[in-house]
Amino acid sequence: MTAKAEPLTVRDPRYDILFEPVKIGPVTAKNRFYQVPHATGTGSAMPNTRAGIREAKAEGGWAVVCTGYCSIHPTSDDRHYPFSSLWNETDIKAQAVMVDAVHRHDALAGVELWHGGGVVANKVTREAPLSPSGIGEPVYVTHPIQPRAMDKADIADLLSWQRDAALRARSAGFDIVYVYAGMGYLPFQFLVSRYNKRTDSYGGAFENRARLLREMIEVTREAVGDDCAVAVRLTAEENMGANGFRGDVEGEALFDLIGDLPDLWDVKLGFADDGVTSRFTEEAYHEPFIRYVKTKTGKPVVGVGRFTSPDTMLRQVKSGVLDLIGAARPSIADPFLPKKIEQGRLDEIRECIGCNVCVATYAEGVPIRCTQNPTMGEEWRRGWHPERIPARGSEDHVLVVGSGPAGLECARALGQRGYPVTLAEAERELGGRVARESRLPGLGAWARVRDWRLGRLDDLANVEIYRDSRLTVGNVLELAPDRVVLATGARWAPDLPDGADGAAPDVASSIVVMTPDDVMAGATPSGKVLVLDLDPYYMGGVIAEKLARDGHGVRLVTPNTAVSPWTAFTEEQHRIMVRLLELGIDVVTSHALQAVDGKGAELASVYDGKPQIVACDTLVVVGSRRPVGDLAKALDERGDDAQAAGIKDVRVIGDAYAPGAIVHAVASGHRYARELDANDLTVRVEPGDGTYVRGGR
Amino acid sequence: MTAKAEPLTVRDPRYDILFEPVKIGPVTAKNRFYQVPHATGTGSAMPNTRAGIREAKAEGGWAVVCTGYCSIHPTSDDRHYPFSSLWNETDIKAQAVMVDAVHRHDALAGVELWHGGGVVANKVTREAPLSPSGIGEPVYVTHPIQPRAMDKADIADLLSWQRDAALRARSAGFDIVYVYAGMGYLPFQFLVSRYNKRTDSYGGAFENRARLLREMIEVTREAVGDDCAVAVRLTAEENMGANGFRGDVEGEALFDLIGDLPDLWDVKLGFADDGVTSRFTEEAYHEPFIRYVKTKTGKPVVGVGRFTSPDTMLRQVKSGVLDLIGAARPSIADPFLPKKIEQGRLDEIRECIGCNVCVATYAEGVPIRCTQNPTMGEEWRRGWHPERIPARGSEDHVLVVGSGPAGLECARALGQRGYPVTLAEAERELGGRVARESRLPGLGAWARVRDWRLGRLDDLANVEIYRDSRLTVGNVLELAPDRVVLATGARWAPDLPDGADGAAPDVASSIVVMTPDDVMAGATPSGKVLVLDLDPYYMGGVIAEKLARDGHGVRLVTPNTAVSPWTAFTEEQHRIMVRLLELGIDVVTSHALQAVDGKGAELASVYDGKPQIVACDTLVVVGSRRPVGDLAKALDERGDDAQAAGIKDVRVIGDAYAPGAIVHAVASGHRYARELDANDLTVRVEPGDGTYVRGGR
Repeated sequence: MTAKAEPLTVRDPRYDILFEPVKIGPVTAKNRFYQVPHATGTGSAMPNTRAGIREAKAEGGWAVVCTGYCSIHPTSDDRHYPFSSLWNETDIKAQAVMVDAVHRHDALAGVELWHGGGVVANKVTREAPLSPSGIGEPVYVTHPIQPRAMDKADIADLLSWQRDAALRARSAGFDIVYVYAGMGYLPFQFLVSRYNKRTDSYGGAFENRARLLREMIEVTREAVGDDCAVAVRLTAEENMGANGFRGDVEGEALFDLIGDLPDLWDVKLGFADDGVTSRFTEEAYHEPFIRYVKTKTGKPVVGVGRFTSPDTMLRQVKSGVLDLIGAARPSIADPFLPKKIEQGRLDEIRECIGCNVCVATYAEGVPIRCTQNPTMGEEWRRGWHPERIPARGSEDHVLVVGSGPAGLECARALGQRGYPVTLAEAERELGGRVARESRLPGLGAWARVRDWRLGRLDDLANVEIYRDSRLTVGNVLELAPDRVVLATGARWAPDLPDGADGAAPDVASSIVVMTPDDVMAGATPSGKVLVLDLDPYYMGGVIAEKLARDGHGVRLVTPNTAVSPWTAFTEEQHRIMVRLLELGIDVVTSHALQAVDGKGAELASVYDGKPQIVACDTLVVVGSRRPVGDLAKALDERGDDAQAAGIKDVRVIGDAYAPGAIVHAVASGHRYARELDANDLTVRVEPGDGTYVRGGR
Repeated sequence: MTAKAEPLTVRDPRYDILFEPVKIGPVTAKNRFYQVPHATGTGSAMPNTRAGIREAKAEGGWAVVCTGYCSIHPTSDDRHYPFSSLWNETDIKAQAVMVDAVHRHDALAGVELWHGGGVVANKVTREAPLSPSGIGEPVYVTHPIQPRAMDKADIADLLSWQRDAALRARSAGFDIVYVYAGMGYLPFQFLVSRYNKRTDSYGGAFENRARLLREMIEVTREAVGDDCAVAVRLTAEENMGANGFRGDVEGEALFDLIGDLPDLWDVKLGFADDGVTSRFTEEAYHEPFIRYVKTKTGKPVVGVGRFTSPDTMLRQVKSGVLDLIGAARPSIADPFLPKKIEQGRLDEIRECIGCNVCVATYAEGVPIRCTQNPTMGEEWRRGWHPERIPARGSEDHVLVVGSGPAGLECARALGQRGYPVTLAEAERELGGRVARESRLPGLGAWARVRDWRLGRLDDLANVEIYRDSRLTVGNVLELAPDRVVLATGARWAPDLPDGADGAAPDVASSIVVMTPDDVMAGATPSGKVLVLDLDPYYMGGVIAEKLARDGHGVRLVTPNTAVSPWTAFTEEQHRIMVRLLELGIDVVTSHALQAVDGKGAELASVYDGKPQIVACDTLVVVGSRRPVGDLAKALDERGDDAQAAGIKDVRVIGDAYAPGAIVHAVASGHRYARELDANDLTVRVEPGDGTYVRGGR
């Protein structure tokens, strides 16, 4: 371990501007850090979980902390997606739990009042969906019901629902109350001609199409404007050309009409572009699309762009793009981001890697998870704080074997608790899979998982790191730690799954068979490459992309209906397919591999078995992973020797335990560290605040 | 209205056998009607809703009423799918609500204890998934985590979890406790060689693979066997050949080993075959696959097959296929099915149409809905009973215009309440869309939506039905009812959605353009047919199927990744694709229509815009639907005249309100009837038992 200078504990005056207060109507944000509304996968059923999430951010220095989307009325029911609501007194009480938690830390609480219009299907409430003209959402929502066209009485109802919900929001204690005109939701649909075909005073000319939004702002202000700021969240550019909302056409027209009507503009992009992963966009990628907004309004503007660099933030403010630095994902990866800038601890910022696992959890309808921040969503459930961790419960010396995401996080968190830790890595390079994968095209930001942890470990004198140290069972016994944690990872297997006859497909010996690990290690395929993608997540597409970029002729074959199907949840699937096609990769979906011989690979349609022969000189199998378990097995076999050496416990974590995504590995390492010497393994579950004592080992 | 003989009120002695009691270990079912475990989309968060659902069935005469899948431990967490659990004391209390409700009606309550093994991803509890050998479920589940291989200590844990959950089940009052060995769940994975590659005493020879199931049965019996029956639910045939569980190989071997160990066998098929829609299977379709079971055990056997005919049920028992008539879907469509047989009211049975909307609600993660039974899931929430309905609240005469699913159900339920009703149908034929669609290939059973309602209307002297009666506004004013309900339906529109340039694609005038309504009305396409499928549900595939069967050359083009994508929720999507290919239909997914002229149709990839020209003489647009609103508009325009005529209220329901699936139309009609003259429109919502007063009109 190299010694290191003490971290700064005062902020760099360059960043003072980020800590200026900003007046938002009748309230004032204490600085420019603004956690914009974002989903947490908690919805109405988990008020305590969501309060725990929001409180961590308020404590971490965000001046404003908002809810996720909050329905104003049962005609806006997005289940199974976890939304919250302000429909009744029960909801006020549930929302107040979050408001009080935010207020405890001197932050403002914002509520994103929302009506989903024709995007929702009201599957629970069974109300008919509403829309300007009866046109459903053709792109990303498939429901077997169309919305109905609202008449004037419906519009009056909607305005009264917004008013009532705003009043309930004020009762719950919120400081900022939204009108949400983004991403296909109701007031936005009125703005856009592909949805709005009305011929009355709410359709036709843009001024008419903007009437509903204006009226929603007005009723909100009338209801609560003396006490609460009225914010509008707007999709300020849809990137759909004339078929969508264009900043330089509809956007400018809108600001000409009502640019100074709300107290705050919260601007975003359309559904397809708003929260793009780091694989496809850089920090501040919203800027060119939303920079027109500040030129058209005198009111404060907040926007996002996966900001993790204080210099980028500074530039946004100084160059007049934004007044408030909005964040969803960066505030999830590091709830204490503002405080770390304020305290001059920049290198401690746990930067968002832009993987969209947080988005995926919402899309899957479950509570939020974060690759970088394993405490996200666990603040209330398990009492995990993002920064603080209980001091060690013993003097035990812990050996952690493997420096992938699980091993690094485990060593770091144990180190933070004060345990003496030895971290042994077999390779020269630290980081394991994160180091390997971050060299694949588009995945560079994933190295932040390693880098943040190495930075923290650098500050921990009680953690010793050994590289080039592939431990044998003898080494472990010799070292004789009190506890052993095996974070030895997993390796991609070349195994092919059994076919209908109960046997794996025949692969001729002339065919070169590789795995993603081989490709990442630099193996070069020969001839025509067939990437057989049996994995639901990203690896098949990324490997195909890398090989095509390296100049190989690549075909990707998958039995799935779409390439990398799970990336639909991270909102990447469409972009991945576009990229593969751009690179000239031949994509064959819905086909299984039957056999490979010198004449090529025989594929069969998963529907009707229809065969197809395609060229194949190198077969890259992206299938399952096999935990690296040699050391675990050897230690198990020498259990008596281990006991004699004083080893109390051997545990396997991360991919070596169950091969998963990086998010699982980090969480596994963190959990080991949290639970060591812990007396209470109780996990709280909502609703009804039941608990269980966690099982599994 | 024709007069009708009074219905029988005693049962046909032929069916006596169905009402014989059946001993199941220490408990006795009072008859042979057995509601097997099935999902209700309620899960742990909705104990009252699920109790309401189960109570309706117990009241309706089912001797046994079971839960859906009930997790024994946090390592079996299937969220976002709504499962229930028996993890702790809170869960016992929540389950007891259902048990007590079932016991109130002298029925037995069964609990399907369940461990999902490698099928679940434990997204909320964050435990590593378990499996025999670390092999995930490649077919229908895509998770970015693989399960880990269980060691002996894990197996011991699992057995203790089953034991503890069984004890909790007994505390909650359950009479029948399950071990669930079906559909890829944990004990089933041990039975099947494609999952089980173990080399210890739990793998290899079939006796070893069956060891875990045997031990789970044994611990369950030890724990609760004196008080509760121990049932095993088994996938008795997977229809996957040597790669799966075969009845005549693994099945027979299993029964040789433990055929008499449990008190009851509940047999089903594999995931892909278990709950197939009527479009693809007939009643009793399980029979050939599971009939071997009764020959191999002396214990009672329950199985399913979408039984709605008492004669089919009788045959199952008499021919020695089943001892207990299992039902999931038929008990959803008609909770009172047993009672109706018992009381000789066979023609009142509301037969399941086999549409799998119930399955889809679970798959979407929302509470259960049923096309035939609009009260399903609303028993507690809205206080809707499947058989009883409050008497009328006034003498109002109601005119219902349109006899589609909404109009028929509205007239029927109003009639049941005692209102004087006039039902006017424009056509000769009653049934609207249900009549039309039930003539399409595979959709014959959907006519039951019409037929059951016409049967009930036949018994209601206060409902008058007029056919061939296309009402003008003048007719309505002349009739001068107190209330008008417009159930005039919707028609498919030939409209094409706007493209990127903000305009709809050009279609040359030489091209014949049709809608599904034209095809259903008998229009004959000429030349090469292009079915442009923009609809998420079934219509595109069905229309293509019909036209191909009629001998036309058909190509189906859709911008979606898969044909009829929403049918993934009804478990039909794969079968639809197979059928289309079998019929020689050329299926082009992920392509949008750009233009059609004499040279053909120009398509463009939704990914990279790459164009493709295909032949097209007739274009069938399966797009959106347009409510039929002429009469509503005319009545609105003559509001003063309507008032003068004494018409108090005009309301639009069903597809004319918001075009949806048949389930939406039936529910809309029912709701109107329930809410007429009702003082209380409160809907209860879980958790926390909040309520809201329903809005929308």
